[in-house]
Amino acid sequence: MALFSTIPSYENSALLRNPNIGIDKSPRPRTSNGSLRLISLKIMATHTQVADSSSVQPLLTKPLEITQLPIFQFDEYLSMKAKKVEKALNEAVPLQYPKKIHRAMRYSLLAGGKRVRPVLCLASCELVGGDQSLAIPTACAVEMIHTMSLIHDDLPCMDNDDLRRGKPTNHKAFGEETAILAGDALLSLAFEHIAAKTTKVVSPERVVRAIAELGSAVGSSGLVAGQIVDVLSEGKEVTLEELEYIHVHKTAKLLEASVVCGAIIGGGNEGEVERMRKYARCIGLLFQVVDDILDVTKSSEELGKTAGKDLASDKATYPKLMGIEGAKNFAAKLAAQAIEELAHFDAAGAAPLYCLANYIAHRQT
Amino acid sequence: MALFSTIPSYENSALLRNPNIGIDKSPRPRTSNGSLRLISLKIMATHTQVADSSSVQPLLTKPLEITQLPIFQFDEYLSMKAKKVEKALNEAVPLQYPKKIHRAMRYSLLAGGKRVRPVLCLASCELVGGDQSLAIPTACAVEMIHTMSLIHDDLPCMDNDDLRRGKPTNHKAFGEETAILAGDALLSLAFEHIAAKTTKVVSPERVVRAIAELGSAVGSSGLVAGQIVDVLSEGKEVTLEELEYIHVHKTAKLLEASVVCGAIIGGGNEGEVERMRKYARCIGLLFQVVDDILDVTKSSEELGKTAGKDLASDKATYPKLMGIEGAKNFAAKLAAQAIEELAHFDAAGAAPLYCLANYIAHRQT
Repeated sequence: MALFSTIPSYENSALLRNPNIGIDKSPRPRTSNGSLRLISLKIMATHTQVADSSSVQPLLTKPLEITQLPIFQFDEYLSMKAKKVEKALNEAVPLQYPKKIHRAMRYSLLAGGKRVRPVLCLASCELVGGDQSLAIPTACAVEMIHTMSLIHDDLPCMDNDDLRRGKPTNHKAFGEETAILAGDALLSLAFEHIAAKTTKVVSPERVVRAIAELGSAVGSSGLVAGQIVDVLSEGKEVTLEELEYIHVHKTAKLLEASVVCGAIIGGGNEGEVERMRKYARCIGLLFQVVDDILDVTKSSEELGKTAGKDLASDKATYPKLMGIEGAKNFAAKLAAQAIEELAHFDAAGAAPLYCLANYIAHRQT
Repeated sequence: MALFSTIPSYENSALLRNPNIGIDKSPRPRTSNGSLRLISLKIMATHTQVADSSSVQPLLTKPLEITQLPIFQFDEYLSMKAKKVEKALNEAVPLQYPKKIHRAMRYSLLAGGKRVRPVLCLASCELVGGDQSLAIPTACAVEMIHTMSLIHDDLPCMDNDDLRRGKPTNHKAFGEETAILAGDALLSLAFEHIAAKTTKVVSPERVVRAIAELGSAVGSSGLVAGQIVDVLSEGKEVTLEELEYIHVHKTAKLLEASVVCGAIIGGGNEGEVERMRKYARCIGLLFQVVDDILDVTKSSEELGKTAGKDLASDKATYPKLMGIEGAKNFAAKLAAQAIEELAHFDAAGAAPLYCLANYIAHRQT
């Protein structure tokens, strides 16, 4: 617990500055074999989603000169990967008999989320040298599990939410019993999908390892542990330690598993897998800190879900415990630490994960 | 669908007669190496649970002489296996932080069910030549999934049951939100447990196959499919075909997976695995037919759960569609067909599965 309370100060990160500096919309320069050209330049993390980066305080006012980083069109990358995931998810849950359950599963699974987890999984797979096709079933699995957790979390006896991603929540659209079953089916399908659909190119040892890793991120030592402590903490005084326990388990563990499973399936060695784990732990907690900040700074319309819920339900949040500015500073430190872990990898390969950390830090929904 | 509607008449099975005939309580004769001695004798399927076999109509009034079957103390076998499973389940879910979720998981998981599924899994593993220790994590996994399905099935928005195995249902004891999360955690743990705890003696190819098999038995083509069609059929006219769909999916699929996964983990070849699948399909449906019969013939006190629920809630059941006698005859035919599949295996090794089919046919709770 309190994994990140004593995080070291690390304030020279280029990716924590306003990402609008140095936008490059020109075609990507490529070497003759089509790989990205490595040049000395400012980081070109450019995506429309971060047009307003006010939610996280920029640490630097002047951009840093970084050597050996590729020109990298993050917008294009994210959209390309998300499209791949979307297609795979659509195929993974066909609208077959019994139609009601498959309709309910597809309703939430294909509701156009940000696909951060599956993209992290694919990026991690590629960073350690694997082809992304190897990790597509695992990427789908983490999104299925994430969707399951949202469906069950929204239920009347849990968060009792009516709105999710701008649409009625699953139980509002299909009824409680179908929502519970749709979640169960997605959770089960996640594991089945990795086991049944991962190409034989990946050694079964690695498939088994990935399943064990993912399982530990979901069960009573992972996601569910975070959810139960969260539910039990409502209306009570919560310490920073307890808050971190909730978020590390409720959010960070699955993000961590997404990244780690990608590295396992992609053929990463022990050192690489553990390095990716550290990166993922930082962005996992970062994700939740930003979520908490958005909950108090954005409207329901902007978020596509009920804003201010955490405050209204007297839930523990970072802004409540640290103040908005304190929470923003903490987010910046987490992003910096995540980026530090990536310094040990090839810069071109790590570019998507640099940008993903930045994207998570600066997202507006 | 309607897999068993056209089941052939097969009325000479020894195991469908009253199992009280030929009780042998003497010590088991053993060969010098401790294995069971094969002799020509009447089947000695003896267990206290079948003292009153009135729930399933005996097909024969005189016992058959069967050659090449072992003297087999089924009572002892069942109790020994169940004890092994109990110990493994207890260790698989320690009472750790957060205590509430683990208490809820343990409450239902260790509530002393009949452990039919895990015992089937172990018996199947041993039948194809595997040591039972190989299949212990898989046996635990099928029981975790079964428990999850009971917890979620009992919820107010589903069957709204207050009593299960003679105790308050999980949500009655811990609240709805904890019950949902306990189910989720058990489902996830099931897959994690197989992946993380199966001994390295088992090839990872087989572990991956078992996980895929189990997943398909649980998700929207398995257990969940049966549950949703069941829920949607309440208060409606249901055909025999639809009823079979519900039960094949809601009950038979998981029993099938228990047996098939046991055979996979135990090292069975393709032919053996498929033979076990056919056996399992019969006893899977048999299990539900007997459940339906018990629901109308037994009291809540005898069953340890609310009796007559199916009738009260206007659910489709075999007795409702076929009459009690028709349902009993159907059960007898299913048991006979299951036993026919076992004839292809070594008789001594198959004895537990013979007796398990008999046990399922004649169980009183």
